[in-house]
Amino acid sequence: MVASLRLPSLTSLLFPATTRYPASLRRTVCLPNRRPLSGFATAPSGTTASTETKSAEVDRLKSDRAVTPRSKDFNAWYLDVIASAELADYGPVRGTMVIRPYGYAIWEAIQEYLNVKFKETGHSNMYFPQFIPYSFIEKEASHVEGFSPELALVTVGGGKELEEKLVVRPTSETIVNHMFTQWIHSYRDLPLMINQWANVTRWEMRTKPFIRTLEFLWQEGHTAHATPEEAEKEAKQMIEIYTRFAFEQTAIPVIPGRKSKLETFAGADITYTIEAMMGDRKALQAGTSHNLGQNFSRAFGTQFADENGERQHVWQTSWAVSTRFVGDIIMTHGDDTGLMLPPKIAPVQVVIVPIWKKENEKTGVLSAASSVKEALHTAGFRVKLDDTDQRTPGWKFNFWEMKGIPLRIEIGPRDVSSNSVVVSRRDIPGKAGKVFGISMEASTLVAYVKEKLDEIQSSLLEKAVSFRDSNIVDVNSYDELKDAISLGKWARGPWSASDADEQRVKEETGATIRCYPFEQPKGTKTCLMTGNPAEEVAIFAKSY
Amino acid sequence: MVASLRLPSLTSLLFPATTRYPASLRRTVCLPNRRPLSGFATAPSGTTASTETKSAEVDRLKSDRAVTPRSKDFNAWYLDVIASAELADYGPVRGTMVIRPYGYAIWEAIQEYLNVKFKETGHSNMYFPQFIPYSFIEKEASHVEGFSPELALVTVGGGKELEEKLVVRPTSETIVNHMFTQWIHSYRDLPLMINQWANVTRWEMRTKPFIRTLEFLWQEGHTAHATPEEAEKEAKQMIEIYTRFAFEQTAIPVIPGRKSKLETFAGADITYTIEAMMGDRKALQAGTSHNLGQNFSRAFGTQFADENGERQHVWQTSWAVSTRFVGDIIMTHGDDTGLMLPPKIAPVQVVIVPIWKKENEKTGVLSAASSVKEALHTAGFRVKLDDTDQRTPGWKFNFWEMKGIPLRIEIGPRDVSSNSVVVSRRDIPGKAGKVFGISMEASTLVAYVKEKLDEIQSSLLEKAVSFRDSNIVDVNSYDELKDAISLGKWARGPWSASDADEQRVKEETGATIRCYPFEQPKGTKTCLMTGNPAEEVAIFAKSY
Repeated sequence: MVASLRLPSLTSLLFPATTRYPASLRRTVCLPNRRPLSGFATAPSGTTASTETKSAEVDRLKSDRAVTPRSKDFNAWYLDVIASAELADYGPVRGTMVIRPYGYAIWEAIQEYLNVKFKETGHSNMYFPQFIPYSFIEKEASHVEGFSPELALVTVGGGKELEEKLVVRPTSETIVNHMFTQWIHSYRDLPLMINQWANVTRWEMRTKPFIRTLEFLWQEGHTAHATPEEAEKEAKQMIEIYTRFAFEQTAIPVIPGRKSKLETFAGADITYTIEAMMGDRKALQAGTSHNLGQNFSRAFGTQFADENGERQHVWQTSWAVSTRFVGDIIMTHGDDTGLMLPPKIAPVQVVIVPIWKKENEKTGVLSAASSVKEALHTAGFRVKLDDTDQRTPGWKFNFWEMKGIPLRIEIGPRDVSSNSVVVSRRDIPGKAGKVFGISMEASTLVAYVKEKLDEIQSSLLEKAVSFRDSNIVDVNSYDELKDAISLGKWARGPWSASDADEQRVKEETGATIRCYPFEQPKGTKTCLMTGNPAEEVAIFAKSY
Repeated sequence: MVASLRLPSLTSLLFPATTRYPASLRRTVCLPNRRPLSGFATAPSGTTASTETKSAEVDRLKSDRAVTPRSKDFNAWYLDVIASAELADYGPVRGTMVIRPYGYAIWEAIQEYLNVKFKETGHSNMYFPQFIPYSFIEKEASHVEGFSPELALVTVGGGKELEEKLVVRPTSETIVNHMFTQWIHSYRDLPLMINQWANVTRWEMRTKPFIRTLEFLWQEGHTAHATPEEAEKEAKQMIEIYTRFAFEQTAIPVIPGRKSKLETFAGADITYTIEAMMGDRKALQAGTSHNLGQNFSRAFGTQFADENGERQHVWQTSWAVSTRFVGDIIMTHGDDTGLMLPPKIAPVQVVIVPIWKKENEKTGVLSAASSVKEALHTAGFRVKLDDTDQRTPGWKFNFWEMKGIPLRIEIGPRDVSSNSVVVSRRDIPGKAGKVFGISMEASTLVAYVKEKLDEIQSSLLEKAVSFRDSNIVDVNSYDELKDAISLGKWARGPWSASDADEQRVKEETGATIRCYPFEQPKGTKTCLMTGNPAEEVAIFAKSY
């Protein structure tokens, strides 16, 4: 019944003729329930995909094929990995996504880290209703302009047409300000710093799982301050937290910086961003932090009495990262074998695959595997023992590689005799990543695993930094910029030209200003477009 | 600017003439930003309450009044506590609620406990989209009948009328089954056990913060099994987890049992429930677990191939608790002074209030208070040091009592000299709950605090058990039932009468069958209504 999915390149890569495993354990693998996601972005425009169930069935019967190689078709590869690693699936409504347990576990790891950081920096979680009166959205001029094409509207409730239609929140600045107005009275009520973990809805036309979906999960922080300096400091602090998170937890070397005016959030004075380079060298905006100035507080009348009793409008920020970050992780580290997870964010850091051929070997192998699991679990690692006998070791190797588990521990009868294990790194394919004869003794093994996980974490970051840096080109003219973009690279060059020029670059090259990076080269600069003096370099790239 | 809210009863209660504190520290208290919630349930029928901001302002100016006594008007008391303890606030759309940080922290404590239990019992978190095609809701006959009057419908997306209107999820059985159908193929895919933490929308007419709101937060578990026995075991296991949670964490002595047919979830074969008695003796359904049988699997065609290759419909369960549980905690333990939180669920278990009169006392007192805080924090308690000098100690006492903090530690100059502290229990008002001269020495204090928190936890449960049991009357006739209900009590009696009789009781007394409790008296029983033999006793009560 189960679809057969062969990954021939892996078989030859990891099990050369000299393998120590018997031929019966070689990888002729079947991954379960595999169903391609390729139709996601191009689903029919009706709201439901009612034929899905049937086509999934058909697919299971004929899906005797590997994940599309990444180099061949990056988008197809991405969708294949999401399906095969069981990260997400289509929702029945066009553009919606079901986040499956393994994908959700990555999101939980993101939440766990950020939630602690938010609280450490003085923010409290709370929850605002998702239904926002339509009139609220209209109060801030640029906000309504930015969001009105993307709104989902509730017009019927409890069987009746509503007097005022309700917006399903695309973001919460308006309702937050409505409430802040009631809670903020004097300078003593400031700063007010909150965050919510919530779902949001944006009626996107071109969708892609995790990257851009009709509904997604995110956190949105909202703060109100007595002075513009405090708000600016807060906005910068939060983009710094996101930056550290990206580097240290997800091994993604984002470039933090400031958005151009054209790319600034609808309603913000300044938008800070972290921009990541995906495996296809397109840019992904992975998180943003906005200095909202007094735009919303003026629109909603959010005022406080300062120490002299004068009424002032508050200064505000908002900042968010979303489930998009999961897509970011997939597209930064994944390879032809599937997902590759940085150890710090991996729901499972170590998978143990026991290997036995004869029934009389089974007890010893499983008992050793359990001890190893217990030792690693006690040491604080997230560890999984795959002891089912419904699958072959080869199938399991492929399955857990597809899921991107950083380390695999193999234990066979010979390992039990020698009181040792075999450890394989997900990030180094084949023999080079495989070490035999690591002692099973708890303290030795724990130390070894810790060291290897740290190495993998660092190595993934280094690799991503090197990939990023080799794909950013310094440019000093529009021609150089065009050349860089046409090669699929990022272009970094001095920029002080107009919004119209920026728009022209977009139209002619498909690239936008991703940011003015915080890290700026020293020395005088000349605008690549106009030849006028420029204060800063900007980074141009095609993006998701 | 800040509204003045006097709580005279507290002043006289806790600070008799013999108080050791100087008169300047006595309680003439102002609680900040207090705004009554009384209008919540009776807000105008339009979708927005646009005059709210203005009336809040007015209210702040005139709110020189205490929380309504619980005995005088339970509903007004409940709304006052929610406002004064800053648990929640109105949303701008009728019937919606903003969960403020303190209320949300209680929800987070609930989540933290249950999330661990769900994972321990083999469930994985995931996320389903909230937009459900309308046609899905219609597939299960009793489900559509139960939910269609309560639906919010999205009819416009991205500026266009949708071909098929979308339901904002009131619960997810339909979309879950749509997806399960694609993931479940063989018996090897079972059991499939998942949970999601999400918002849900039900267009309720009569709303009440936490108890019944247009949108609320919950977890919903969904499982699929190969046999009816497994599904039944799962449904029972989950109501048992809820029961233990209620007893052990929230000190609420719920009664677990089975719903009558009339009160069973729309689409379930059996609904198990935990029923709690509120301070006004009305019943609150605090959590439910449904054995769904094959109702949804038949409607959606959710089938698997069993070990013989035969296609079978899966057997399912679903189970949920929601932010309603926060209301449950308020209405079970709260008193005229405000909220009272069981230590295990309290976001802050111990508040430290430093007391100084002269500036030269301040340093010593604050330094001692910090050390105490550090010692308790290190020992794992959730502790808050309220060291602001913008408020008097009296104000702080009231404020933190209103917030229901189980223990208060007071440290004044004399305590610093004697290296001791004063400890006050929230659950025992006045002198009786106050102990002087507890050593500040870390190990002594930590042991003392632990003991007191355990005592409070037990004591709250005992008090609630005793209240519950003294308000349940065993009845053997309809007249006795009517008497009990008219006294505001719960009636427990043998029942084997018809649905029509059950409906008649509801119409004539306002009481419904809350459950057939799991714990049944022994011996033969005679139906209180018909005189026929009865298998079980049922509990009747008025409910929220």
